[in-house]
Amino acid sequence: MIGIHPLTRVPEIAPGDNLARLLGDALRAGGLAIQENDILVVTQKIVSKAEGRFIRLADVKPGAEALRLAAQTGKDPRLVEIVLAESVGIVRAAGPVLITRHRSGLVMANAGVDRSNLGPGREESALLLPLDPDASARRIADGLATQFGRAPGVIISDSFGRPWRLGVVNVAIGAAGAPVLLDYRGRLDRDGRKLEVTQIATADLIASAAGLAMGESAEGVPAALLRGYRFSDEGPDAASTLVRPLQEDLFR
Amino acid sequence: MIGIHPLTRVPEIAPGDNLARLLGDALRAGGLAIQENDILVVTQKIVSKAEGRFIRLADVKPGAEALRLAAQTGKDPRLVEIVLAESVGIVRAAGPVLITRHRSGLVMANAGVDRSNLGPGREESALLLPLDPDASARRIADGLATQFGRAPGVIISDSFGRPWRLGVVNVAIGAAGAPVLLDYRGRLDRDGRKLEVTQIATADLIASAAGLAMGESAEGVPAALLRGYRFSDEGPDAASTLVRPLQEDLFR
Repeated sequence: MIGIHPLTRVPEIAPGDNLARLLGDALRAGGLAIQENDILVVTQKIVSKAEGRFIRLADVKPGAEALRLAAQTGKDPRLVEIVLAESVGIVRAAGPVLITRHRSGLVMANAGVDRSNLGPGREESALLLPLDPDASARRIADGLATQFGRAPGVIISDSFGRPWRLGVVNVAIGAAGAPVLLDYRGRLDRDGRKLEVTQIATADLIASAAGLAMGESAEGVPAALLRGYRFSDEGPDAASTLVRPLQEDLFR
Repeated sequence: MIGIHPLTRVPEIAPGDNLARLLGDALRAGGLAIQENDILVVTQKIVSKAEGRFIRLADVKPGAEALRLAAQTGKDPRLVEIVLAESVGIVRAAGPVLITRHRSGLVMANAGVDRSNLGPGREESALLLPLDPDASARRIADGLATQFGRAPGVIISDSFGRPWRLGVVNVAIGAAGAPVLLDYRGRLDRDGRKLEVTQIATADLIASAAGLAMGESAEGVPAALLRGYRFSDEGPDAASTLVRPLQEDLFR
């Protein structure tokens, strides 16, 4: 049995907070110590907050492309300027939708720039993705190891839309010490045929599973512990591995 | 806490099998009765097998378009003919990849036509998606209700690739009595701002969570029970709801 435990005792996070310490407190408050194969899933939002990734809209001066795209999408030109500064390319601007390729390679709405639930006094700010989510995950894992004597796997999740399906799902944008991609290329099925499905995005499955325990976006829980999923340490453990290389992008 | 219980005692499924009965047996063998809010996730493969959705390659005569696409993708022309017959349009044919829009609206590789782990004597066959996966889910739920006095939610899952990310994840292609799409449109966040993320594809999160317990594709478990996820009966309960309407497809 795999268990997903929501961490309900995480306080509002502010820049400079020791996130690993606060997550450790929340684990202890929930009666949870770190066991072998535990994986802690943490939302991008609290990681970005702890890392102070806020930007004040008043400090942003939109350029010509931002003004044009803002008019096209009905968005705040300052927000569009922030999105463009975070992006290496525009994938689609259609109706109210602005999908870009973030400089990390992630293709997502508004380059992951977030304006919901930023906390008191942040109404006129936006929140960027962590600078290096895999490194953020590693720092959290290390910080928890000093508290519990053992590091959990850590996955940093964010919610992504999909081109052909409604609703968002959670995916892994950062990871450390957790399984990311199971690779069965070259393996045979039970009948001796080469397997058709050969790579499984395990970290995204874990992020989505945790999304269930994190609940709704309005008053959601920002972290959850996944326990009982047995995995080996083989294979990549950085979520950046899951970004499909640009040359394999079928939609360019 | 949410628990995901793999059903390890499901036998090889053949056309005409009473799938609800066999899943009920596997639940009982695992010491599981149906409780309130339980959701049973079942892979498309065993649903299609029970419904006899096999087609023999020897019975297929590829047409001109199938021959052309087979040459382009390196696939068996008879398989391509089957894929085209299941599809209402080709989304991308590039390299070895053939992505189509299945007549159900699902955009997926090879229209969901499956050739792995089809079972003994089926090496020269292919397996189509269930004719109506939402109806299949309803039949399984009803069949379990007669055994347990209560119907679980049922989700039928399949694995999908993604345009910009490596690896497949599990999504819901059929559902009955399970939460499919949480809709927060018009809701406010804690700071009184309109929420940015407004629809959550709950059924896909559940399918992905179950995917962890189902394990690897080579010798995987074909069903898992999700327990402890509280949901209301409001909102849609058909997985077809999750198909983004064609007119909203940003990539046409």
